[in-house]
Amino acid sequence: MANSPSGDSMTARIVRVLETFDADRTVQTIADIARRAALPSSTAQRIVAELAASGLLERDEDGRVRLGMRLWELALRGSLALRLRQAALPFMEGVQARVREHTQLAVLEQDEALFIERLSHPLAGANITRIAGRLPLHASSAGLVLLAHASPALRERVLSQRLRALSAETQTDAAVLRTQLERVRREGFVIAPGTVETVSTGVAVPVREGRRGPVIAALAVVLPRDAPTAGAVDELRRAAAGIESALAAP
Amino acid sequence: MANSPSGDSMTARIVRVLETFDADRTVQTIADIARRAALPSSTAQRIVAELAASGLLERDEDGRVRLGMRLWELALRGSLALRLRQAALPFMEGVQARVREHTQLAVLEQDEALFIERLSHPLAGANITRIAGRLPLHASSAGLVLLAHASPALRERVLSQRLRALSAETQTDAAVLRTQLERVRREGFVIAPGTVETVSTGVAVPVREGRRGPVIAALAVVLPRDAPTAGAVDELRRAAAGIESALAAP
Repeated sequence: MANSPSGDSMTARIVRVLETFDADRTVQTIADIARRAALPSSTAQRIVAELAASGLLERDEDGRVRLGMRLWELALRGSLALRLRQAALPFMEGVQARVREHTQLAVLEQDEALFIERLSHPLAGANITRIAGRLPLHASSAGLVLLAHASPALRERVLSQRLRALSAETQTDAAVLRTQLERVRREGFVIAPGTVETVSTGVAVPVREGRRGPVIAALAVVLPRDAPTAGAVDELRRAAAGIESALAAP
Repeated sequence: MANSPSGDSMTARIVRVLETFDADRTVQTIADIARRAALPSSTAQRIVAELAASGLLERDEDGRVRLGMRLWELALRGSLALRLRQAALPFMEGVQARVREHTQLAVLEQDEALFIERLSHPLAGANITRIAGRLPLHASSAGLVLLAHASPALRERVLSQRLRALSAETQTDAAVLRTQLERVRREGFVIAPGTVETVSTGVAVPVREGRRGPVIAALAVVLPRDAPTAGAVDELRRAAAGIESALAAP
């Protein structure tokens, strides 16, 4: 049903249209969308019209297109991301009030770390993370925590691919990473200096669903490169325990 | 294209499936989804399979279905809601640190107030608002601000419908509301005691896109019914000005 001659489903084509939007492209013409989604212009036009009729996209007077509030509402109101973020926010604010740099929460999504919340001090140092943005699992501190606690199959799939370097210090040797991930599991935290940007150090801990349950998120702070990290590890561990209790509450 | 015998588009059916999820129903069986979306079971099954293949839905081992992180990501990363919320959050935290009740941000969506952010003090009083939840424009303080500044056509459309009472004190007389909305435009704030719940008072101000631009959101606090409101109005006005400046920054 609803399949194009090329065999992709209508849903897949809708996703391709939605994927053309990001933080740097919040408003697009239909021609932009067609080009970026690699769809014939008439197909893009029809899909945009349908999505606009349902409120998932919105059009302005000039015919330019943006994501609709209705899409945001549907995506959020029944989502695990919202539940997790609501449980985490008070504890993230506590960390942020004391560490005063960047505090962020990430989950595993399609073999990458997807950031679902970020708090930043106005005067904090560098940090390329964005909410709803992604970083490679092997490079970011949050990603390393998620990778350490992922299924062995996922971990090997990620480690067997070509590992991209984000900075001169990103570890891209799978054997070295395997040893590092084992240590993350044993010690319960990771300190990753310079792996995303040379000017900063990421520190991250796991957040579990239930005290001994599976790891469902990573809580991280991003510090200036040479800042002390011991206090941050303690802060993050306390906050993670708080989030785990909040998630367990009815 | 992709239309069912009943004439609704594939997109509309996808929206109907997504709409069956909310904060109280984050995990459902396909049978639940089919019933709530009023779709034949085989159709629901196919749509869920397509949405799961694209990551917009996720299935657990028992075949139960939840919204996917991918949907959350697509909905957020290029959205006006995220931009607005990121600009507003530091100022909302400032209000929240001083007022210590509930601080929330709403936008106009499909003739209702849609709440896109909420911060709450652990010991704060009653508040039925949820993030990604809605309230009627004529009843909530944020809604009254949005309605006061909506287009005359939208305002008359809302006021000409049967106005639902959320509490014994919700104003449902269109003529009285018209006078009240005029005052909101003139004074730049609204104080709405008991209109959502008898135990609380909402206070709200508009947030503009550019200092003299259109109103794009309402910033509100929810206070215990008999709390003083003057300080809250000042707090909200200062915060709204801050958000407006942040939105104007590149």
